[in-house]
This record gives sequence, C-alpha cells and structure tokens, in this order.
Amino acid sequence: MTINEALTALSDLEATLRAYTHALGVLNYDAETVAPRNSAPARGETMAFLSGIVHERVTAEQTGEIVDTLLSQKESLSPADRRRAELLKKQRDELTVIPAEEYMAYQQLLAESMQVWHDAKLSSDYAAWAPYLEKIIAFNRLLARRKDAAKPAYDVLLDGYEEGLTHETLDPFFALLRQELTPVILEVAKKPRPDTTFLNQPYPIHLQRHFTDRVLAIMGISRDDCAVGETEHPFTEGFNKHDVRIATHYHEENVLSNLYSVVHEGGHALYELGIADEYQGTLLSGGSSMSIHESQSRFYENLIGRSLPFCEVLLPELKALFPEQLRGVDAEKLYRAANLSEPSLVRTEADELTYSIHVMIRYALEKAMIEGDLNVNDIPGEWNRMYKEYLGVEVPDDRRGCLQDSHWSFGAIGYFPSYALGSAYGVQMLERMEADIDVWGAVRSGSLKPVTAWLGERIHRHGQLLTPAQLVEGACGGPFDPHRYVNYLKDKYGTLYRL
Amino acid sequence: MTINEALTALSDLEATLRAYTHALGVLNYDAETVAPRNSAPARGETMAFLSGIVHERVTAEQTGEIVDTLLSQKESLSPADRRRAELLKKQRDELTVIPAEEYMAYQQLLAESMQVWHDAKLSSDYAAWAPYLEKIIAFNRLLARRKDAAKPAYDVLLDGYEEGLTHETLDPFFALLRQELTPVILEVAKKPRPDTTFLNQPYPIHLQRHFTDRVLAIMGISRDDCAVGETEHPFTEGFNKHDVRIATHYHEENVLSNLYSVVHEGGHALYELGIADEYQGTLLSGGSSMSIHESQSRFYENLIGRSLPFCEVLLPELKALFPEQLRGVDAEKLYRAANLSEPSLVRTEADELTYSIHVMIRYALEKAMIEGDLNVNDIPGEWNRMYKEYLGVEVPDDRRGCLQDSHWSFGAIGYFPSYALGSAYGVQMLERMEADIDVWGAVRSGSLKPVTAWLGERIHRHGQLLTPAQLVEGACGGPFDPHRYVNYLKDKYGTLYRL
Repeated sequence: MTINEALTALSDLEATLRAYTHALGVLNYDAETVAPRNSAPARGETMAFLSGIVHERVTAEQTGEIVDTLLSQKESLSPADRRRAELLKKQRDELTVIPAEEYMAYQQLLAESMQVWHDAKLSSDYAAWAPYLEKIIAFNRLLARRKDAAKPAYDVLLDGYEEGLTHETLDPFFALLRQELTPVILEVAKKPRPDTTFLNQPYPIHLQRHFTDRVLAIMGISRDDCAVGETEHPFTEGFNKHDVRIATHYHEENVLSNLYSVVHEGGHALYELGIADEYQGTLLSGGSSMSIHESQSRFYENLIGRSLPFCEVLLPELKALFPEQLRGVDAEKLYRAANLSEPSLVRTEADELTYSIHVMIRYALEKAMIEGDLNVNDIPGEWNRMYKEYLGVEVPDDRRGCLQDSHWSFGAIGYFPSYALGSAYGVQMLERMEADIDVWGAVRSGSLKPVTAWLGERIHRHGQLLTPAQLVEGACGGPFDPHRYVNYLKDKYGTLYRL
Repeated sequence: MTINEALTALSDLEATLRAYTHALGVLNYDAETVAPRNSAPARGETMAFLSGIVHERVTAEQTGEIVDTLLSQKESLSPADRRRAELLKKQRDELTVIPAEEYMAYQQLLAESMQVWHDAKLSSDYAAWAPYLEKIIAFNRLLARRKDAAKPAYDVLLDGYEEGLTHETLDPFFALLRQELTPVILEVAKKPRPDTTFLNQPYPIHLQRHFTDRVLAIMGISRDDCAVGETEHPFTEGFNKHDVRIATHYHEENVLSNLYSVVHEGGHALYELGIADEYQGTLLSGGSSMSIHESQSRFYENLIGRSLPFCEVLLPELKALFPEQLRGVDAEKLYRAANLSEPSLVRTEADELTYSIHVMIRYALEKAMIEGDLNVNDIPGEWNRMYKEYLGVEVPDDRRGCLQDSHWSFGAIGYFPSYALGSAYGVQMLERMEADIDVWGAVRSGSLKPVTAWLGERIHRHGQLLTPAQLVEGACGGPFDPHRYVNYLKDKYGTLYRL
C-alpha cells in the first residue's frame, strides 16, 4: 500500500465511520430526549448492530495496513494526516482488545442501562441499577487491563478522556483544591447568605423555554445549526458544524438551573460549531478531549455566565418574561444569587467554589471501583459518607446522591476529572484573553462574539488536530498551573463574601 | 440452499434490515421533529450511505437465492414464512431495477428536498422547491417504467402503496364521490353555518400540549411505548410495538387542528402498537398498506373523534384547560363545530364531506405529472384552478395550496388515494363493528378499548401477513363498496344540516 493509497483508503473509511457514528449519535440523542421509555431494548439491538460494523471496520486488517503505512512514513505526511493516522491507531488499538461480540453486548448493555438508570433515579432506587453499573465497571476494568496491563487500570481509562492524564497528576491536583478551598468554603459558611428569595417562586417552564432561545441568541448560537431538546441530565452532542444538539432540563422552581445548563451546554456547542471546515467528517472532527470540552462549557457557564456584566445583560431579558418574579431585583442581586456558595447535593447546580469537591468525590469513587477497592453495592454508603465528610451535607436519597449523574450509566468511567481540569484550564485562558481583548466590554455590550472568536482561534477550530496539552499551552500561554484556578476562586469568593 | 438454510438466512437478513431501517427511521423522525435546519445535507449523506447498504443486501445474489428457494416450495411453508418471502421478493424486485448509486442519490435528494420544501412552504415559494419535485417525479416515472413498462407508470406506483390498486378502480371511485357528494356540498353551503366563534380565540400552545396527553390517554395509548413530537406536517412513524412516534402541529388559533391531528396520528399509532409479537422485527411488521393505515387513522379521527359521544368525553377535558374560551359551550356545540362542513384550502383540516375532493385533486395532479401530461412548473396554476372548480375556493398562496402537504417532497407519489380509500374502508368496518359491540356505549364511557380490541383482532395484529384486500374482506365482512361511504356521508351531513 502506498501512502496515496493509504490516504484514499483512510478517506473511504472516514466516510463509513462518519455515517455509522452519525446514525449512532442520532439514536443516542433521540434516546435521551424523545424516545419512549420502553424503546430501549430494541434500540440497544440496533445500536449494538451498528457498533459491530464500526468495530469490524476499525479492526479490519486493511485498517491496520492504513495505519502502518501512514505511521511508518510520518515525516512525509501533513500534520493533519499524521494526526488522523494517530487517532485511527488509537481507536483501533482500543477496539482490537475487545472481541466484536463483547463490544456489541456492551453497547446493548449501555442502551438498557441508560433506561434503567433513568427510572432508578426518578424513584431513588439504586438497587435496580446497580447490576448494570457492576457490569459496566467490570467491562471497563477488563478493557483497561487488556489495553495496558502494566499501568493502573484507572490511568488507562483516564487516557481515553485526556491523553496522558494519570492519577499522578490528579491526586495532587485534587489534594491542592481540597487543601486550598476547604478553608474558604468554611469561611464563606460563616458569612450572611445572599438573598435568593426571588428565586423561590414558580418560573413557568414554557416561559423558561423562551428564555433558552434568548440565552442562545446572546451566545451567538444559530438555531439553524443547533437544536435544543430536553432530558433528565443535560448534555450536548455534535454531529458536524451544521448539526449540534443541546439537551437541557427545566425545573419550575429553579430558573437558574436551566439558565446555567444552557450556558454550559452552549459552550460545548460553540466548540463543535467552531471546528474548521476542512476537518468536518474526518477523524479530526469533534473536540480534542473531554477536559478541553469542559474547559469551554465551564468557561461560558461560570467565567462569563456568572459574571456581573453577563447578569446585567440577562436581567432585562429575564424581566421581560418574569416581571412579577423579578420585581425589584437588580443585576447585583442576580449576580450574588447566581454565585451563592454553599455545600450542596447536586454537582451540576453547585457553585464554582464547592464544585470541584463534587468532582473529587466521583474521582475517588470511580478510581476505587475500577481498582477493585470498592464494591458497587457500597457506592451509596460511600457517596453519602464522603458528602458528609467533604461538604458537610446529609444526602437524603440516591436521586440527589449517587444516581444524580448519567456518566457511569453510559459507561464514562474516567470522565469526571475533566470537569475540574476543564474549569481550571478555563481560568488560565481567561487571564490570557483579558490581556488580548476587552472581554468585559464585549460581554456588557451583549455580544460574546469577541470571546468566541478568541477561543475559536486557539481552541475550537483545531478540532482534534492538537493534543489537549498543545491546546492548553497554546491558549493559556504556558503550561497548566492549578494555582491560578485556586487564586481565581479565592479572589472571586473573597470579594463576594468580603472574607 | 435448503428451506431451513433459506429461513435461517432470511432471519439474518431481517436482523440486518431491522437495524438499518430502524436507524433510518430515527434519522427521519429526528429530521422532521428536532434537527436544526442546516443539518439536511450531512444527514442526507448518512441516510444515502445506510440506504446503500440496504440496497446492497436486498439485491445481493444470496437474497435472490433465499427468495427462489422459499417461493419454489411455497406449499411447505407456513403462511407467515410464505408472506415474508413474498414481501422480500417485492422489495428486491423494486430495488433491483435501480442501481445502488441512483438509489443513494435519490435518498440524498429526498433528505434535502424535505428541508427545501419546509422553507418553501413557510415562505410560499414554490419555485424554490420545484426543481426537487421535478427530480422526484422523474425518478418515480423511471422506477415505474423499469418495474413494469407494460403498465401505466402511475398504476405501478399505486401498487407500491396498495397491492393491486390501479386507476381503473380509482377513476370510478373518485367519479362516484364527486358525483354523489358535490350536490350535498352545495346544499350544505346554503344552510346556516354552525357557531364556531368560541374557536376563534387563542388556545395557548403549552396548554394544548397537555391536552394532547389527555387525548392519547383516552385513546389508550401508553406513552411508555409512544412518544409525541412536533413538526410542520403531522405524521406517525412506527419502529416496533414499543417505539412508535407521533408528530403533531400546534396552531394557537385552532385548537381543533391539533386535536384531530393527534386523534388521526393516534389511529396510526394504535395500528403499529397492536402488531403481534411474533411479527416484530420481521418483514411482517408494520402496516399492510397505506390505505389500511389510513383506514385506521381516519377511523379514529372522524368516525370516533368527530362523533357526539367523543365530543361529550372531550369537552370536560378541554374545559379543564380552557375554561374561559369554552364558557357556555356544550357537547352539541363542540360536535357541530368539529363537523363544520365548508369548502376549504387545507386537506388535513377539511371536514369529512369535502375531504375526498381534496384527495381527488392530488390524485389527478400526481397521475398527470407521472404520465407526462402535466409539467411540474404548472402545478400551482392547475392546483388553484382545480380548487376553484371543484371546491369553489380561491387559493391565496402556495403555502395553503400546492405546498401544504409533505408527501411529494418525501417521494410519496401514489400515496394520496390511500386517504380516500382508507376513509371509505373505515365506514364499512364501523358498520360491522356496530353489529358486534356497543361502540357508542364504550366511547361515551371514555374508553376506546373495545373499539381498539375489535380493530386489533381484525386488522392490527396481522401486520403485513395479510394483503389489504384480505384485511378489508375480513374486517368489513364483504368486498369493498364505496356506496357505503357515500351513504354514511349523506346521512351524517343530512342530519347535521337538516338537508
């Protein structure tokens, strides 16, 4: 096989994978947003079947030839082609260690797990879902062992979400966060709680839906390229730059929940929408890693979304829809309510200061499960114990406890650290951005375009061409430094609560 | 290949086709309900790719062997297996006359056509969509010629929707309807118009959505097996008996429009939900023909839905949601408004009496286009001329004229007669049903279960095992007789308008 033959074969393979992953993506989005409850088993069969074809094509001998041909002559390839070959090799290495039947059975398991988890969450019935989690953990442990028996299994899984990430980075990262942030959390707890009574009223959901439209318009997201649905656990799925899907969740008694879900998911969407034309439909499409993805979502959610200038822009929009509920509320009051910091139960609703503690708990638990140090049946007890120990809160039920997140249910073990890492990356990006452009002038004017253009140039457009480390280096102007994140949080909450 | 080998290979093939058609169905439902506007081209590529695999498998030599083996020994097969083989042969014969590339290009065309039609309808811009219709007509004409050059092309297409149906049945059928119903329509026009002013008020859409839930509950449709979405042109898609999808359309100023869309689509849904377990996932799943399908949808919509007993059941539900709008309205008044008969512009909103005239116009136009007697560019003029001649109405724009239906846009040429035929079948089924069970007692009690059980036994459960003719014979207790439909309409509107 010549290089040109290999590149042609690679393009053909990409066309095949594009069709199957697109179909699988739509099946998944449909499952999480609109499919009826009982549809899971048959959808699982279809998804397993289509995943089986993907497995067959990626593990085929010819795919090995493509990879070998291209990577043996790396130096004569363009950076994009080299990266395509590397990413294909990564995918192939991963799938090759799993026989097709096992892989297909796992896809079926995940489809059913999502349905069972959904029901289990609503009824706080952990036992109903535990057998699925048991199998998901077993599969992931086995996968990790087969991929690299020499490394700790959890490190192998982490690498799937963030190239090169290991517990050796994460242990001190979380230790630093806990050590530095816990005193701040305790001090904040002694201060007067900002007034949030205006939030404790019904905000009708059909009006919140209109507000979603306004928020996405402010973010500069064209609805011609991005649809919005509703789900139990908010997420974003991107098929290509003209087809991105956000799923959010409305609570009548919590208007900020949807607001910040939409801004968070909108950040993911802007990433997917901003990937360069030339990478569309290739292996370079999609985000570089989950940490980079979360750096974008958490950037918009917190650094922009929970800023005073953004609250100033939002308030008139909110008041237009909810005049009674917001009578007498000014931007400062909204800003303080949006930044209320207190130990709480639900990660996605947590303030920036306590957020990484939520992530740390999940990190500790999933690592322990994978390493065999924690039994699946002991998760609720451990979860509740850690929430008490780390955050001082009593978990009243598993719905607001260990069943709250969908990630383990869809097989994502090793994903959670991305949220904390991404949050920290974002702070460093913001500092650099502030040196380059008038971030707050732009936000105050009601346009996030300059912000998105800055991120688009350094992050979005590259798709998967660059590694997470290269992107962090390029966008942050230096290596990652978690102290910047800690200092940002100390400053922000120090000012807010006059510590 | 032995019979047993052929049956095993047939089951394997069904598993493959099931996965691809399921994925294609979800892609289509997603496209029509939630996908963003600009997503059509990439989705078209994916759907073309997956359709190409279906084409490849159905036209494969091995599939020919399966068909030949089974059909050469028909007498030793069970009725179900024989029918599976026959249906596979039918599908194979159809796809074999189209080269894979043409078929795939056509699927891509349809995906884009739907998007362009959607935009064109909203802006009443027929010219924007006409080039797509041109290609769709050309494809269908060519397909018909290749399938059977000896028959009129339109008859070949009709057969795709209703086995054995030809213009020789339809010409006199529609002639009869026109001849018998036109005098009634003219007489009705001279009578006082029932009071419908209570409908000319805003009925907020978020409340109409709740009403949809209530209507489906009354119909006995479990939302665990059936989801509801929103779209431009209502439709139903069934993947299996645990996954049926209804798409409806809300108009704030027309609460009956959504009501009868939902009851109509609910009729389709009950058919799909009632197909026997043993046919799930085989070639025998799905409805027998579009006429039979429409016989069910129109049965619930009109024969049940627009009956006085059903209006009596609906009214308290409606009043609970819209107390102001319905102050002083009684069931009789709702019933008369729901059966207002007058020449109008939009088929899906038409009353039972004028409905088949709408269908007849489409029948005449699509037949003429396929036979080469009418140019695509002349459609708006002809459409408007016929609406004036047949119904006496002036068409103000193409949105309410020739762009109103989605059918031609998704390639369905030969489908429209199903609506009139199905409506007529339904009347004959009702007459038989009334002899068997207390239909109106059941409806009045608020439960459609006995009605659905009766239809389930005679129609739904058989899936595609029986031909449309067999089902009509079985459910109507004799051969089809369009005079029964005419008499039903004359009686109903004679009484309503005291003719």
